[in-house]
Amino acid sequence: MSQKPAIRHALSITREADFAAWYQDVISEAEMAEESGVRGCMVIRPWGYGIWERIQKLMDARIKAAGVDNCYFPLFIPLSYFAEEAEHVEGFAKEMAVVTHHRLIQDGKGGLVPDPDAKLEEPLIVRPTSETVIGKAMARWIQSWRDLPLLTNQWANVVRWEMRTRMFLRTSEFLWQEGHTAHADRDDAMAETLRALEMYRQVAEDDLAIPVMVGEKPENERFPGAVATYSIEAMMQDGKALQAGTSHYLGTGFAEAAGIRYQDKEGQQALCHTTSWGVSTRMIGGLIMVHGDDDGLRVPPRVAPQQIVILPMLRDDDGDETLLSYCEEIRKALAEQSALGEPIRVLLDKRAGKATQKRWSWVKKGVPVILEIGGRDAAGGQVSVVRRDRLWKPDGKVNFIAQSKDEFLGQAVAELEDVQRSLHAQATERRDAQIHRGVTDLAGLEAFFAEDKRYPGWVELSWSRPTGTALEGVVQKLKALKLTIRNTPMDGGPVSGTCLFTGELAVERIYVARAY
Amino acid sequence: MSQKPAIRHALSITREADFAAWYQDVISEAEMAEESGVRGCMVIRPWGYGIWERIQKLMDARIKAAGVDNCYFPLFIPLSYFAEEAEHVEGFAKEMAVVTHHRLIQDGKGGLVPDPDAKLEEPLIVRPTSETVIGKAMARWIQSWRDLPLLTNQWANVVRWEMRTRMFLRTSEFLWQEGHTAHADRDDAMAETLRALEMYRQVAEDDLAIPVMVGEKPENERFPGAVATYSIEAMMQDGKALQAGTSHYLGTGFAEAAGIRYQDKEGQQALCHTTSWGVSTRMIGGLIMVHGDDDGLRVPPRVAPQQIVILPMLRDDDGDETLLSYCEEIRKALAEQSALGEPIRVLLDKRAGKATQKRWSWVKKGVPVILEIGGRDAAGGQVSVVRRDRLWKPDGKVNFIAQSKDEFLGQAVAELEDVQRSLHAQATERRDAQIHRGVTDLAGLEAFFAEDKRYPGWVELSWSRPTGTALEGVVQKLKALKLTIRNTPMDGGPVSGTCLFTGELAVERIYVARAY
Repeated sequence: MSQKPAIRHALSITREADFAAWYQDVISEAEMAEESGVRGCMVIRPWGYGIWERIQKLMDARIKAAGVDNCYFPLFIPLSYFAEEAEHVEGFAKEMAVVTHHRLIQDGKGGLVPDPDAKLEEPLIVRPTSETVIGKAMARWIQSWRDLPLLTNQWANVVRWEMRTRMFLRTSEFLWQEGHTAHADRDDAMAETLRALEMYRQVAEDDLAIPVMVGEKPENERFPGAVATYSIEAMMQDGKALQAGTSHYLGTGFAEAAGIRYQDKEGQQALCHTTSWGVSTRMIGGLIMVHGDDDGLRVPPRVAPQQIVILPMLRDDDGDETLLSYCEEIRKALAEQSALGEPIRVLLDKRAGKATQKRWSWVKKGVPVILEIGGRDAAGGQVSVVRRDRLWKPDGKVNFIAQSKDEFLGQAVAELEDVQRSLHAQATERRDAQIHRGVTDLAGLEAFFAEDKRYPGWVELSWSRPTGTALEGVVQKLKALKLTIRNTPMDGGPVSGTCLFTGELAVERIYVARAY
Repeated sequence: MSQKPAIRHALSITREADFAAWYQDVISEAEMAEESGVRGCMVIRPWGYGIWERIQKLMDARIKAAGVDNCYFPLFIPLSYFAEEAEHVEGFAKEMAVVTHHRLIQDGKGGLVPDPDAKLEEPLIVRPTSETVIGKAMARWIQSWRDLPLLTNQWANVVRWEMRTRMFLRTSEFLWQEGHTAHADRDDAMAETLRALEMYRQVAEDDLAIPVMVGEKPENERFPGAVATYSIEAMMQDGKALQAGTSHYLGTGFAEAAGIRYQDKEGQQALCHTTSWGVSTRMIGGLIMVHGDDDGLRVPPRVAPQQIVILPMLRDDDGDETLLSYCEEIRKALAEQSALGEPIRVLLDKRAGKATQKRWSWVKKGVPVILEIGGRDAAGGQVSVVRRDRLWKPDGKVNFIAQSKDEFLGQAVAELEDVQRSLHAQATERRDAQIHRGVTDLAGLEAFFAEDKRYPGWVELSWSRPTGTALEGVVQKLKALKLTIRNTPMDGGPVSGTCLFTGELAVERIYVARAY
């Protein structure tokens, strides 16, 4: 009997063996980020930061195209601003970094301590989000209907003191963009809320190749003080959900707290309707858990810092010069082409070191296409190509394909576009296979999410959209199963039957899942 | 006798009347930034932030082209890291924001206070610069000579507690980039130090149209712990100097403190030589004080968020539609052209409001070229053009030039390039006229900087490059005159005579000036 040859994967931990440990391993082996030695804060290394720069670039173009202006607001927020907000907002998160002093002095033992004579009169909070300080600016900037809509965004770092941190997914400091807008009425504010949501869907699906469910969060999951919160939800390979972006319609509550008023066309004073929306470096955690495999990360070409890496098989002899000039010729020809709307990002990796070691470092980083070129290839006008999404042959060998240089150059653009498409298709297929319908009662739900099921996925239910205490009851029941309601999809799909929780007529669908 | 007609400038304060108040007025009237209500922190508004985004974009391309990788390091630095550094570095600045708590609680009176039960074991400092934390990362990343040079940069916010703040020039929080690199030997590190310096010169001269003196800072002005500090120095219109960027060769001192070692080709452990270099939002303060005039800001086209603004003279009647489509045609034709290496950034300002009010808002913002187009222009295929650097006619009227649409479109690129060149030429001429040679003794120096001289400029001297206590004596003498040594120019100009301070043979030149 023949045995299927074993593939020797690049990582030492598989997804199947330990998903959480695999996640950390990908981050480490792809050199994306690492612990910084500062509690809850990470160092984002060039490959991880390069992906963030790509996300920033693609999203910022969409933000600007929507007429939203980038600004920069202070890192620090006076404590009193939060006290004002706290009056209006129940459930206000209080885990924040508090600045109390503005000077260090020698402690006489060779160390430094905060100077007791330099205590701030009012403590400052390191921003966990900027609604309060931006609200005050809006109140200054808006006088009349002519000033509306006011559309602002900032790219910034924020801090939320987290007890249990995980790189990219939950860190005390993280990078994000926060959009804040003010409008004359509900309709205009809601249109902006949904525009931002659609923008996030596009960034997730078109740029990151991550399929997402677009919908409204249930009442209990709203941003504190919001009238409505919308999200995009992605499914990780372990079947858990990740909220990958949120957009909030805030009504007039925040405007009232901050005094954001305008004179309407009739000369009357009116409160603005505001929105806020944000996406963070958390998105990169989603990227890893959606596209990564047992050989490391796989980056969709649109967000890959390098899309093609050329590896010359240097031999430290006279042939190297010819080989390098052949490689450089290919690099140049690629860089002059455009794929997915931008010039191809291609790197010729001339570093010293073993060729196979270098190959596996790029495999683990998830570069979409790798070329390996030896002296004989150069002489014969050939290249050896491997696509990261088709890394292995059935016989357990790396799936290198020999092509003529011209053939490869002629199809490189199509190849990159196909990797982008193929990663999205794989992720969509996997996700759809893990969305389960047909659960009709609580016992069925419990059975579905039984402990022995490793990667159960999501359950789609129809429900009656209970509110208040009725909703609280549902939330508690789900919590006992470690489940949460992700969102109510806005895809217009069919609703039928009765609500599994209340027995009432179902009015909409929801996704129920374990989540990050 | 005829009298010269008075120009009615757009600002209420002239440079001549009160330079400091004029500076604030430009920032306010151009809507670049404003006080945030948070001590020492500003809100950077879209026009100011748009200029920063342009500087970032142009500099980041140069940073990447030099093979430097962007990363992101933590906002917080444990107190103990500074204590280690403080041992090595005298004159260590201690005015920093100190985080001592990680939670707020209700104070029982409707307010919030830091939770005494959530006091950090070790206080955290909000980074004033990142040598310490990046040094520790480098120590982890560098093992062998193959890992060198290690070239990193980050775009980040930093905080230095400032008692007297001034927008862009000195704020408690500011935005900057900080490059940090490690090298095998002095020569390689010094080459990188000077590459960064040359990059800053190019950004200042070629992008911001600010002429700068490139040189080495005297010993007393070195970054604490540096072996050599270099700077670019710009002259403001009031004759003061502004240090607009610095680059430091740090020797092996920082590597020793952080343990940045590598194994060389012979297998021996050796200390790395490190560098750091930074440019901040301060550059925007320099832009204002170099190019601004009594009508507000003037932005060189390369860093202007909008290079051309089209103002339709809307009349709220049937003709508006024809007018707008004529304007849109021009906008589109401009956006399809490239000037100074990028597509022209052009805005069609359709906002409601008086046309003259809108014109002056763009004049104050310093847009390089403004088109005003009325219904009659549209009918006749004409435009009315004004260049911000040639705003006034001798008769006190705005210098609009009527042109055919095609004529304007045919020369728009050349026009923008000429504004860029012309702003640089004006600034260079003004600066050169205010650099004075021929001061031969201290009395002469004192006389030159006498109180009644409003805008004395800089004095170029030859000196003997005293060190230690001899230098300290010089610094004190200059301090009494409110003067500092800016730098030793690296332009290879002639040195002659004796040192005005020591009487010894002069070996190099220095610039002496009042400074921001």
